[in-house]
Amino acid sequence: MKRRDILTAAGVGLAATALAGCQKQTETACEQQSTGQTFNWKMVTSWPKNFPGVGVGAERFAKLVEEMSNGRLKIKVYAAGELVPALEVFDAVSRGTAEMGHGAPYYWKGKVPAAQFFCALPFGPNAQEMNAWLHKGGGIQLWEEVYKPFGVLPMACGATGVQTAGWFNKEINSVDDFKGLKMRTPGLGGEVLTRMGGTVVNMPAGEIFTALQTGAIDATEWIGPYNDLALGLHKAAKYYYTPGWQEPNVTFELDVNIKAWETLPADLQAIVRAAARDVNGDMLDDYNARNMEAMETLKKEGVDVRRLPDEVLAKLREVAAEVVDATAAADPVATKVWEQQKAYLQRLSDYAEVNERDIYNIRRS
Amino acid sequence: MKRRDILTAAGVGLAATALAGCQKQTETACEQQSTGQTFNWKMVTSWPKNFPGVGVGAERFAKLVEEMSNGRLKIKVYAAGELVPALEVFDAVSRGTAEMGHGAPYYWKGKVPAAQFFCALPFGPNAQEMNAWLHKGGGIQLWEEVYKPFGVLPMACGATGVQTAGWFNKEINSVDDFKGLKMRTPGLGGEVLTRMGGTVVNMPAGEIFTALQTGAIDATEWIGPYNDLALGLHKAAKYYYTPGWQEPNVTFELDVNIKAWETLPADLQAIVRAAARDVNGDMLDDYNARNMEAMETLKKEGVDVRRLPDEVLAKLREVAAEVVDATAAADPVATKVWEQQKAYLQRLSDYAEVNERDIYNIRRS
Repeated sequence: MKRRDILTAAGVGLAATALAGCQKQTETACEQQSTGQTFNWKMVTSWPKNFPGVGVGAERFAKLVEEMSNGRLKIKVYAAGELVPALEVFDAVSRGTAEMGHGAPYYWKGKVPAAQFFCALPFGPNAQEMNAWLHKGGGIQLWEEVYKPFGVLPMACGATGVQTAGWFNKEINSVDDFKGLKMRTPGLGGEVLTRMGGTVVNMPAGEIFTALQTGAIDATEWIGPYNDLALGLHKAAKYYYTPGWQEPNVTFELDVNIKAWETLPADLQAIVRAAARDVNGDMLDDYNARNMEAMETLKKEGVDVRRLPDEVLAKLREVAAEVVDATAAADPVATKVWEQQKAYLQRLSDYAEVNERDIYNIRRS
Repeated sequence: MKRRDILTAAGVGLAATALAGCQKQTETACEQQSTGQTFNWKMVTSWPKNFPGVGVGAERFAKLVEEMSNGRLKIKVYAAGELVPALEVFDAVSRGTAEMGHGAPYYWKGKVPAAQFFCALPFGPNAQEMNAWLHKGGGIQLWEEVYKPFGVLPMACGATGVQTAGWFNKEINSVDDFKGLKMRTPGLGGEVLTRMGGTVVNMPAGEIFTALQTGAIDATEWIGPYNDLALGLHKAAKYYYTPGWQEPNVTFELDVNIKAWETLPADLQAIVRAAARDVNGDMLDDYNARNMEAMETLKKEGVDVRRLPDEVLAKLREVAAEVVDATAAADPVATKVWEQQKAYLQRLSDYAEVNERDIYNIRRS
């Protein structure tokens, strides 16, 4: 093993290019510039290779950091399963297997129940509200506090915006239609379904299509038209229901191992933060544009797009409120987060009555 | 004048700190690293010093760039009037008086009528829709094309989100109440007011309060609760009307002189782009959080917050559509932009029916 390989293996290497112009005797002096050190980091993700939307966003993050740092911080992106499985991203960053990770906070709810509140809540915040809470309403500070014992620094790094309610092979006309419904829907939405009399079946993305086609499940939600179209779900289900009450948004996270973070000079830390913020906005723009386009495609292909009846949505909302409160109550850290977040989101929602919501309504009335 | 001063005056200096570690004979080699050159740039803005929201965003942009570049690109921010007046920011960047500028695109509508379409439209896009169009729907490409003949590269760099309809000393109960109304309201909203029989009076921010108090004007719109509270407008008007139909969002722009831009190495260009994108999101988060808080404060102080009647909003929407179409038709470049933008925004709005708008509604129904 060459010296350079050893350093790289440790996640820190010397930038051959940056030193190329310097003569032997001044190499040390040049190295001491904050610009003289190269970091080769690994980022594990929860996404398959080239996964639309969120996977593209993770790649964009790594590319931006490399460009801005002129190659001083290189991040190799690993798809789910390449280094660690999709749901072990947080653990891998926590123990230092990788310096960085990209995933959805609620994937590690088994270890960190409070993580769900930084991610998605049924009938909860949309992307804009989640961003206001995180960045200006105390959310990020709570998130950092919650992850600190695990040695992980979180940043918001992407959002899906409003999702869809999912693909169904049974019509939903009343609350009773959820009784006995076998549906693939993880997280808090799944808990709501269970309380409505349904049966939650969980499975990885690759198995959903066949399960739906063979009738092993009656319904599934995935993300939104952009990702759903890519998975071909419209070829295995009769009805596409809206709106995505279970996830008005999912916020994704960049995880950074805190010990690794502390080895970065201030300029590289600033670059990582800005790249995460760039992707946080860019991914939402991507989803908003591509979901719209994909929905048009699905309609052209004859998909039967339906809205859940008001009566059903009202019941789902009632049950969802119970589920979210109960989830928070089951964990002291989650209780603290939800207490602050719930009050703040209520204030944002009250204000939306006279601006954001009203603008949507007056343009179409 | 010393050599260093001459270089600085030209906007390009050698980074003394970056070179400190290098011995005389290798100075040239170190300089040749993309990291070896320091740029001292000026950014003129349309904002008073420490102006809440948008002014804070401009300062954030400069700070981020300096941090990320480790001081290689230093941007001195000038308030409106310090180097050039508020409305001459675009001109100053175009002729190279300053390398950068920060303002609102519609401020230069006299020179570039199409600029308005990248900024704000009555009953037009909210921040989320404007961002999707700009970054994923072809908007930015059109914007760059429109500004190129002026030697200016534009980037989206901040958004207000939904504004308010403004402060009134006369009640608005019907469309007839706009007849004879003297109101400070610039831009396309002002054109709508004129067609409704009102009289548009324009004046700088510093004169609004007195004009409202003395009755020289009957009404004014400014931005939203956050900025309006800072200006004390609630102490000079009886009614605060919502929603901000005239500006569901204002997007701000970073202007870069193209010749100056081309002197930046690729890493600094990437840093500027990411900093603009960071501010684009952060400023919206800031407005969403602070507007909500300021509205609470205004209500506590007894402000009479009212919603414009549906009948009035319907008429305003009808007239606004005429105004926007006529504005586009009056300029061939604007015609091209609006043709593409109008179709795209309609598609986004159609899709919002089954997601974003519906989520706002089902949470409160």
